[in-house]
Amino acid sequence: MSQIDPPSVDPPSIDPPSIDPGQSVITGSTRLYAIIGDPIRQVGSPRVFNPIMARNKVDAVLVPMRIAAADLAAAVAGLKAIGNLDGLIVTIPHKMAMMALVDEVGATGRLVGAINAVRRGKDGRWAGDMFDGRGCVRGLKDQGDDPAGRSALLAGAGGGGSAVACALAEAGVKRLTVCDIDRAKAERLARVVAGGFPAVAVAVGPSPAESPRGYDLVVNCTPMGMKPDDPPPVDLDALAPGMTVIDIVLKQEPTPLLAAAASRGCHTMNGHRMLQGQAMEVARFFGFG
Amino acid sequence: MSQIDPPSVDPPSIDPPSIDPGQSVITGSTRLYAIIGDPIRQVGSPRVFNPIMARNKVDAVLVPMRIAAADLAAAVAGLKAIGNLDGLIVTIPHKMAMMALVDEVGATGRLVGAINAVRRGKDGRWAGDMFDGRGCVRGLKDQGDDPAGRSALLAGAGGGGSAVACALAEAGVKRLTVCDIDRAKAERLARVVAGGFPAVAVAVGPSPAESPRGYDLVVNCTPMGMKPDDPPPVDLDALAPGMTVIDIVLKQEPTPLLAAAASRGCHTMNGHRMLQGQAMEVARFFGFG
Repeated sequence: MSQIDPPSVDPPSIDPPSIDPGQSVITGSTRLYAIIGDPIRQVGSPRVFNPIMARNKVDAVLVPMRIAAADLAAAVAGLKAIGNLDGLIVTIPHKMAMMALVDEVGATGRLVGAINAVRRGKDGRWAGDMFDGRGCVRGLKDQGDDPAGRSALLAGAGGGGSAVACALAEAGVKRLTVCDIDRAKAERLARVVAGGFPAVAVAVGPSPAESPRGYDLVVNCTPMGMKPDDPPPVDLDALAPGMTVIDIVLKQEPTPLLAAAASRGCHTMNGHRMLQGQAMEVARFFGFG
Repeated sequence: MSQIDPPSVDPPSIDPPSIDPGQSVITGSTRLYAIIGDPIRQVGSPRVFNPIMARNKVDAVLVPMRIAAADLAAAVAGLKAIGNLDGLIVTIPHKMAMMALVDEVGATGRLVGAINAVRRGKDGRWAGDMFDGRGCVRGLKDQGDDPAGRSALLAGAGGGGSAVACALAEAGVKRLTVCDIDRAKAERLARVVAGGFPAVAVAVGPSPAESPRGYDLVVNCTPMGMKPDDPPPVDLDALAPGMTVIDIVLKQEPTPLLAAAASRGCHTMNGHRMLQGQAMEVARFFGFG
């Protein structure tokens, strides 16, 4: 059985904490951002970005747009013709297909092979990049857990895992081990990271049995933990004080992985923190925040 | 000199009175409406429609979209691919071109030769119609001035004048005289109205000298009154108590026509009232309000 991609960074109808309900009053001069995906009802980005814009007195709103995979090219051609639309957040199923619809793709997006935000430049050209992983790194730095010089064990080499792997490499981890039930997928990601960041010692580990022993950072980018009876993505007994454990799975309550990590004295970071970090990175890419 | 088209129903940065600033909080489930035009900054529709939706607990927002005339077809093709976009308000310069981009056009739109609102039906087909004139009629009815059975003098046979002429005929005026500096334009509109509404006695009058004497309703659909030194669109001395005088020109203060009408004991209705009436008609067409 192949591991499925981790959940989108947009949570299923869970609002990230500490969200202010404000949004800019829409007038004729209001500029637009949109999140495009299918399905779309579950996305959290409007409630994350609109308060950021309102707080920063940016006369703009972010709205959801449901666009089917088959309609992406026509829809994006239409959206580019809207003069006051400045950027898009891209979610499932469009993160890979969007690559072909922009004029330039940043280094992380090229490495990951997918982008999750695009913006219109002053010259009218559209640029995209991948921020799913940078949000993880920003969240870690914000809580005093800079990945630079540390070792990381990554479970899950799907879309989210790829983004996190590249971001951790970009942030200067010295060693990275990638695990996936689909070993070929892990090997492919390891080659990508090794090619992009020669200073990082990249390895492929077994899954799901790889032990976190000896790692500084343990990151779950598999969907294990979404359902109550999921097996743990790593050996929980090997978690030890001094480690930082990150879970991409978005839940109101701590996932079994994070609960076990906390009880064993590890630092933890949940998917909401990562989403907030990602929003800050995308807001900066969009030119506000 | 040919008379220019009257101003769009979207006022130049003037907010219609009694607007409540509320708007629905945007989430992943929020549905979309847009006003499309070029320029777009001056449109008032977002501040008219968003409070209506918020008051009626409709989880939707209306946003402005600047779309150049040359991009209309591509942009509309893209907008139709957005699954949660349910309707568009159409303003200058797209009211005529939009006719070709929908699946069906209502009777008023076909008569006027232009549409200002389109919606997606349950069957996925897009339907459009023209509400610029119906807003005038609704405003009149709301203030107790039902046009049915009355006679009307209309100055201005451009886009707005055409919409108002058809709406007055639809509302049952018994006699309608159309005036325009461009007499051929007035004759064309008179033929359209006579063809669509055989029960109405339609005539063409001189312009700008036609006297309001003997008419129940006097409607200015020319831009005369926007600038302080504009000549009056009709003979002000012929205004008399019992008449109702309507001015499409959007100004904060009464236009010279409305000021003269009020001082002579006429009922009056300004462009803001018409805009509010139009918003109510479009809101009903969209399925809320």
